[in-house]
Amino acid sequence: MSIVAVGSVAFDTIASPSGKVEGVLGGAATYFALAASYFTDVRVVAIVGEDFTAEHENVLKKRGVDTRGIEHAKGKTFRWGGQYLGNLNEAKTDFTDLNVFQNFQPHIPSHYQDSQFLFLANIQPDLQAMVRREMKTVRLTGGDTMNYWINNARKQLAETLKLVDVLLINDTEAKSLAGETNLPRAALKVLAMGPQALVIKHGEYGATIFFREGAYGIGRHPFRAPALPIEEVKDPTGAGDSFAGGFMGYIASQGELSREVLKRALFYGGVMGSFAVERFGTERLQSLTREEIDARFQIFRELTHLE
Amino acid sequence: MSIVAVGSVAFDTIASPSGKVEGVLGGAATYFALAASYFTDVRVVAIVGEDFTAEHENVLKKRGVDTRGIEHAKGKTFRWGGQYLGNLNEAKTDFTDLNVFQNFQPHIPSHYQDSQFLFLANIQPDLQAMVRREMKTVRLTGGDTMNYWINNARKQLAETLKLVDVLLINDTEAKSLAGETNLPRAALKVLAMGPQALVIKHGEYGATIFFREGAYGIGRHPFRAPALPIEEVKDPTGAGDSFAGGFMGYIASQGELSREVLKRALFYGGVMGSFAVERFGTERLQSLTREEIDARFQIFRELTHLE
Repeated sequence: MSIVAVGSVAFDTIASPSGKVEGVLGGAATYFALAASYFTDVRVVAIVGEDFTAEHENVLKKRGVDTRGIEHAKGKTFRWGGQYLGNLNEAKTDFTDLNVFQNFQPHIPSHYQDSQFLFLANIQPDLQAMVRREMKTVRLTGGDTMNYWINNARKQLAETLKLVDVLLINDTEAKSLAGETNLPRAALKVLAMGPQALVIKHGEYGATIFFREGAYGIGRHPFRAPALPIEEVKDPTGAGDSFAGGFMGYIASQGELSREVLKRALFYGGVMGSFAVERFGTERLQSLTREEIDARFQIFRELTHLE
Repeated sequence: MSIVAVGSVAFDTIASPSGKVEGVLGGAATYFALAASYFTDVRVVAIVGEDFTAEHENVLKKRGVDTRGIEHAKGKTFRWGGQYLGNLNEAKTDFTDLNVFQNFQPHIPSHYQDSQFLFLANIQPDLQAMVRREMKTVRLTGGDTMNYWINNARKQLAETLKLVDVLLINDTEAKSLAGETNLPRAALKVLAMGPQALVIKHGEYGATIFFREGAYGIGRHPFRAPALPIEEVKDPTGAGDSFAGGFMGYIASQGELSREVLKRALFYGGVMGSFAVERFGTERLQSLTREEIDARFQIFRELTHLE
């Protein structure tokens, strides 16, 4: 079933201990769409500038991604520069040029309107809420946010969280959003804000999904999926969005919304995140096969499952 | 089968957001012995001062721990003070009074000499090596160390690592020991120093065991066990030693040394660590039942296992 992804398309300049790239295609919507494309049909809503060429668009089209929701505006595409020279777990931002992204007003093409799944990547919470309200057939909405909105748009974010079924954020964001340093307690507080389930991403340690009592099944136990211990992390950019793509893409590919589906989706999220970091930019996500993905899923399973 | 634990017995003064305790029984050997006592016979080698009373010794004796290897010396027992007020994941040390521990020379009672399992808690590496060489019947040796020895006794530690079968350290120690920030690569380097297996403890994210090629079975994939997301972490002191106690205790309770046994042991390590932090000091470890332990093992399993 189709999934609509709303978020940024960007050109990234990235330095890591493994090298440096300049102006490579990136952005949350791009990573998400490529990762999800191995599981289901993906439709993107984003904004790009005149420097976004047919060649760039073809990266998405080749993976079958519907790009008709990408608005082409006058000016330059969002550009971000960052480095992981000291710490592979956290980017030091060198520059953020929002360019056309600054005035992003998501427009949902009418032929996207039958989509049952929606992913709201990290954009201004009011825009996330607006998109969600526009989409009438959506069965499950995934959402991301960041500390900037948690600190500076708390009220708007609170409204958006009521419309998001599964929120995907990292440890720091969860603690900051809840105002609570203990992670399980922070999770309970965030779930009380609206979402049915909360995925907390722990970087190289994997991710945990916490469920609201009774959501998608019985019980209240959380579930944890690993991240693969990878010897070669070349570029962590987009790992979280690729995780979200694998997670949401797998869910959209399944008929039912059960706890077991969400657990397996958590594994697929980890799998796609682990592929993303193996090469700079989206390179690795452009050329995968479903066989490679399922083989890594098996490795993840063996990594954590007792006989 | 019996396991000998060599390490510190201490009196701890601990402050955390949940409260404060003064001079409570602690030390690596104490936490380890209590945790391991739920799985197998434990024999302790340590040194205490005149302030260590029969009442303190009874904490261990009640759990069936053999305390005849605890040397009673003139002076005071090792005392440590620390706080977790800012960060539950890392203690800020207020004071370290080594007292009698400063001149600790482990003496292995002759009736300990038939032991098949040995745990060398964090003490001076030369002493660890000496103990290991003295024990002729040992089938598996577990060992711990800390950044102080990694930085200041590297050569001695290198000799000790050749005598240790399973090294249990945390992320920071593994990276520091290997001089490598990527964890899986750091693991490979540490394994090359001698151990057959390396357990890296990730605090609230669980632990990963890396195997030397062919050690305890076929294959080279690591294995990861979770730590339970616990809402109430009262006192993290001793979590690592309790982890080691559960891990080594379970191994000693099994007949064979197989990869599957070590994987299950990793789960039991996480289980015992998670109990330890629920109360101040060793309180929780004194009053467990094997049923409670196995119930939590099941929760850990459900936390990570797909259907």
